[in-house]
Amino acid sequence: MKHPHIDREYDNELKELRQEIMVMAGEVKKMIARAVQSFISMDTSLANGVTALEYRVNQYEMDIDERCLSILARRQPMASDLRFITLGLKMVTDLERIGDEAVNICERVIDIGSHSLANFYPLISQMAEIAQSMIHDAITAFIEKDAKLAKKVVTRDDEVDALYVEVINKLVDYMVKENVKQGFNALSIAKVLERMADHGTNIAEQVIFMVKGKDIRHSGESS
Amino acid sequence: MKHPHIDREYDNELKELRQEIMVMAGEVKKMIARAVQSFISMDTSLANGVTALEYRVNQYEMDIDERCLSILARRQPMASDLRFITLGLKMVTDLERIGDEAVNICERVIDIGSHSLANFYPLISQMAEIAQSMIHDAITAFIEKDAKLAKKVVTRDDEVDALYVEVINKLVDYMVKENVKQGFNALSIAKVLERMADHGTNIAEQVIFMVKGKDIRHSGESS
Repeated sequence: MKHPHIDREYDNELKELRQEIMVMAGEVKKMIARAVQSFISMDTSLANGVTALEYRVNQYEMDIDERCLSILARRQPMASDLRFITLGLKMVTDLERIGDEAVNICERVIDIGSHSLANFYPLISQMAEIAQSMIHDAITAFIEKDAKLAKKVVTRDDEVDALYVEVINKLVDYMVKENVKQGFNALSIAKVLERMADHGTNIAEQVIFMVKGKDIRHSGESS
Repeated sequence: MKHPHIDREYDNELKELRQEIMVMAGEVKKMIARAVQSFISMDTSLANGVTALEYRVNQYEMDIDERCLSILARRQPMASDLRFITLGLKMVTDLERIGDEAVNICERVIDIGSHSLANFYPLISQMAEIAQSMIHDAITAFIEKDAKLAKKVVTRDDEVDALYVEVINKLVDYMVKENVKQGFNALSIAKVLERMADHGTNIAEQVIFMVKGKDIRHSGESS
C-alpha cells in the first residue's frame, strides 16, 4: 500500500526523531554507568555530577514529546509509523524516569559516603550491567523494529530478578548483623536497578507489540 | 477555528475513551484501597484478591491503547484533542504501573502475615489517603481539562514526601531495635505509596502541559 504522505521531508522527520531518541538513550545510559561507578568507587563528586546530566535528559524528553506531537498533527502517520511515534511518546517517559532512578542511586551514594560495602559490589555490578544492556537492547530493538531482540530483553528480566533476590537476602542479613542504615542504602540501590530492568522490559514488550501488532503484555508469553 | 473532523461519531469516540479511562482509574483506586486495607487489617486473603483486579486493569490498558491508536489513525485529531489522546496513551501506562504497585503492597502484606506493625498504621494510612486523592484528582483534572486542579496535585507531592521521611526514620529505628525483616516490609509499602504519589504528580504535570500547551515539567515551577 502506498502511503499518502511519504516524501523526503517526512522521512527526515522520522529519522531525526529516531536520532534524538538514541541520543537521549545514550545520555541515560551514561547516567546509569556513572551512578553505579560512583557507588563502587565511593566517589560522591561523581555522584553529584550525574544531576547535571539529568537536566539534559529532561530537556530531551520535552523536545521529543513536542517532535512526536508535531509529526502527529501535521502528517497523518499510518500503521507502523503511528505505532512507532506513539511508542516513542511512551518511551521517553520511561527513559526520563530511568534517569531519575540514576539520580536516586547517587543520593544513596552520597549518604553512604566513605562506608565500604565492597561485599556487595560484584552482585550490584552484575545487576547494573544486565539492566544497562537490557535498556540498550530495548532501545536498539525499538529503533530497528527488531522484535527478536526485544524478546531477548524480556527473558533477561528473570536474571535481574534472581540477582535481586540474592542481594536482598544478603543485605537483610547484613542489616541484622552489621549496619541497618548502610545496608538499607545498598538495598535501595539494588531496588533501583531492578526497576530499571523493569523499564527495559516494559519498553521491549511494547516494541514487540509495535512490530507485530500483537500485544504480549500481560499475556504471560515470554518466548 | 472549525475542526475538519468534528462529527457526532468522533465526539462519541472521545467520550467513550474518557469513560474507559475513568473506569480503569476506578479499578486502580480500588486496588490501592484494598491493598492498604489488607495491610492495616492484616488480611492476607484480601491481599490475594487484589491480583484478580490486576488482570482487569491490564486488559483496560491494552484496550485503551488500541482505542487511542485507532482514533489517531482514522481521525486527524488536532491541537487539544491530540494532546488529550497522546496523554491518554501515557497515562494508562502510569495507571497500569500504579496497579502493579498495589500488587507489590499485597506481596509485602502476605509476607508480614499476622505480625502487627500497628505503630505505623496512622502514618501509612495518611500517606495512602493523600496518594489516592492525588491520583483521583490527577485523573479528574485530565478528564475535565482542569489545570488548576492539576496544579494542586503537584503541590501535594511535598506532603507525601514529608510523611515518607517521617515514616522512614521511624522504621529504620524500628529495624535497628526490633525487627529488620518486618520493618523492611513496612518500609517497602511506604516506598510504594511514595511512588504512587509520584505517578499522580507526573500525570498532573502532563495535564497542565495538555491544557496550557506549556511544559512545566522540569521547570521547577509549582505555583
